[in-house]
Amino acid sequence: MFQPPRGTRDYLPEDQLKRNWVIEQVREVFESYGYEPLGTPAFEELDMLTIKSGEDIINQIYAFKDKSDREIALRFEHTASTARVVASHRELVFPFKRYVIGPVWRYERPSETRFREFWQADVDVFGVKDSIADAEVLSAAVGALAKLGFESFTINLNDRRILKSIVELAGIPENKTLDAFRAVDKLTKIGREGVIEELEGISPDLESSIKLLDLISLKGKPEEVLKTTREMLNNYSLGIEGCNALLALFKYSKGFGFSEYIIIDLALARGLDYYTGPVFEVLARGYEDFGSIAGGGRYDDLVEVFGGEATPSTGVSFGIDRLTPILDKKGVFNNLRLGNEVYVAPVNDKVILKTIEITQMIRNSGHSALTDMMGRSLSKQFEYADKKDISYVIIIGPKELEEDSVTIRNMKTGDQGLVKINKIISFLEKAE
Amino acid sequence: MFQPPRGTRDYLPEDQLKRNWVIEQVREVFESYGYEPLGTPAFEELDMLTIKSGEDIINQIYAFKDKSDREIALRFEHTASTARVVASHRELVFPFKRYVIGPVWRYERPSETRFREFWQADVDVFGVKDSIADAEVLSAAVGALAKLGFESFTINLNDRRILKSIVELAGIPENKTLDAFRAVDKLTKIGREGVIEELEGISPDLESSIKLLDLISLKGKPEEVLKTTREMLNNYSLGIEGCNALLALFKYSKGFGFSEYIIIDLALARGLDYYTGPVFEVLARGYEDFGSIAGGGRYDDLVEVFGGEATPSTGVSFGIDRLTPILDKKGVFNNLRLGNEVYVAPVNDKVILKTIEITQMIRNSGHSALTDMMGRSLSKQFEYADKKDISYVIIIGPKELEEDSVTIRNMKTGDQGLVKINKIISFLEKAE
Repeated sequence: MFQPPRGTRDYLPEDQLKRNWVIEQVREVFESYGYEPLGTPAFEELDMLTIKSGEDIINQIYAFKDKSDREIALRFEHTASTARVVASHRELVFPFKRYVIGPVWRYERPSETRFREFWQADVDVFGVKDSIADAEVLSAAVGALAKLGFESFTINLNDRRILKSIVELAGIPENKTLDAFRAVDKLTKIGREGVIEELEGISPDLESSIKLLDLISLKGKPEEVLKTTREMLNNYSLGIEGCNALLALFKYSKGFGFSEYIIIDLALARGLDYYTGPVFEVLARGYEDFGSIAGGGRYDDLVEVFGGEATPSTGVSFGIDRLTPILDKKGVFNNLRLGNEVYVAPVNDKVILKTIEITQMIRNSGHSALTDMMGRSLSKQFEYADKKDISYVIIIGPKELEEDSVTIRNMKTGDQGLVKINKIISFLEKAE
Repeated sequence: MFQPPRGTRDYLPEDQLKRNWVIEQVREVFESYGYEPLGTPAFEELDMLTIKSGEDIINQIYAFKDKSDREIALRFEHTASTARVVASHRELVFPFKRYVIGPVWRYERPSETRFREFWQADVDVFGVKDSIADAEVLSAAVGALAKLGFESFTINLNDRRILKSIVELAGIPENKTLDAFRAVDKLTKIGREGVIEELEGISPDLESSIKLLDLISLKGKPEEVLKTTREMLNNYSLGIEGCNALLALFKYSKGFGFSEYIIIDLALARGLDYYTGPVFEVLARGYEDFGSIAGGGRYDDLVEVFGGEATPSTGVSFGIDRLTPILDKKGVFNNLRLGNEVYVAPVNDKVILKTIEITQMIRNSGHSALTDMMGRSLSKQFEYADKKDISYVIIIGPKELEEDSVTIRNMKTGDQGLVKINKIISFLEKAE
């Protein structure tokens, strides 16, 4: 028996229905913000995907050669592909705001919550230097998550420039900055000792490592933390820039309505190499065990790296599929069902053509209808209709047809009565 | 400058909007028939995809090894994956009716209309032996195409059992049947002489080849063609079974309402090896140059081949992306636009927080709104709003704010007037 490849899964109708519903909610919110849909291929040139992503992710890429020996790879996120599009389409009107909701692939160790194929939803703004764009993408993500049923959030914020200045202040060599970021990013995963061990491989000076970890332990409400950080990075213009960016982001967040959620966390690094400014992650309060449910940041260099004009860029993304178990727990899907309203039941195969005609009439009016395809007895048909959670069964019998009528049974109340064929649609519409 | 990999393309917002609209229409029709959504991974075990597909398609598969040396491949269609699901999930309620709309990948020579990544929409019925299921999947496909704006169709029908008996009747060795089918399938592409040449490689007997081509030249309205075919295949029980199946399909099509479109075409073979009964293809009248826009057939053995219980199965699929140029020509997309209703314009950066608040209020009410993120002058903002096809610009000025008011300009008429902030939503809703 064949199974889906290791780390992937099938979405049977019940699950796919949930996924489709989640996508619909997210899309509605993204579109209310004026983000426009973009479609890019599932695979890209390998070079493009790896050029600015960092070592960790390179190990997770599904790379292969096509039949002409081109090195291609399945996308592991949506940002690089979009930056490629922006680089080569200067006819776009800026700011260019796009969303994408689609699958990405990462070769990771699979677990109950980690899959090798998973759907990500992204919003990104291209062409805006100011922190208002970072605030807006965060607002759109938080808005989408709120639409899905999450009530309260923690938004952890940091800025790569602050982190860079702190790495310098700690005395770690400048050419080791990105390595240090990647080590710091693992803090919650591998702990303080683990990070120190990783840093030992990067910079042999243990004192620097300890100093770095002490400096990034600062965490709390924006006003206080940013004040302390400014004092600490007084001589580091890049770090001060980062502080200003976060302060502006915090100011805008008051307009967007999510300022109460913000925590400045100087230990937040994010895994990808391409970030240049603010970085952020969103946690759902009460569901912190699930880890961050959205994340992103500013990547002002990426479009230029891909051969385009310098284009300040920022975005946020979240995994659609990872949310489903949480939403399940919250009971969000309790009322979700397939819209199978009507089952049309022929009493014998002599009325099958008339049965099909009536079924088609119902479908063409925009309602959903099933009918028998197995030549089943009426009682077997009712059994099937029950399993399919049908609201109304329309019974087609030869005697009733002689009077252009059918019997409609309400499956909830058990009530049933004769209805003229030309009144079926209005009956169903009144019944809704 | 990086480009999308050869044979793939980006869908910029204008195009992705069209694609999303097409998917939405198709999904609505499929759901009205009671088809349920299914999601399967983008890649499968290579063995599974190739086991019953035929040589031609094997050459088009994107196959590769993952980091554990598993042989996997991108799906080139949706049928095999679904049959795999049906084989391993016997808890499904039969008949199981599923739809899927998603990308597939084929390594073919790219052209203006042929891409290596393209979206396919499928409906399939599992568990129904009777031709009513073949008729229903055809009806669902034709219904979806009609919803998209196609008015009239030609549906070419044949049955693999008829074709098998004809191959036998022509004197081609039985073990060459599938090869003969694949040769015949190319008739419109390579012509009569081309098929004879292909057949020469299969069966050295030229007379057989010519006889085969003569026999399959029969084409026309169901009643006459099936009568002639029955006489011709009088001694071939398999062929007679095929005739009966097509006759039943034709009968049901009268109930479904598409009988007028049906043509029996004994030369129709379809490329894939797994078909066992009726095969079909749909052409749009007036757009025959585009070739068939939908196709499918019955594949009663596939679920069993994948290790499941014997499960009669039939389905139809069509390419979403291939339809777009035709729909474009027909003007179907003329009224399609991004739903950007409102642009909120701050007159200076002192009112930016209030501007954001008002923008958020509009978004939260379910309307779509953009605002300035560039600190642009009012006239530049109007230019941007124009490019974005905005209906209303809301101007936020400090004086008006003192009276809790804003100025709203109708971008079509040029009319503008003061509106209280708490009346903005009702103003927009009245204006719709």
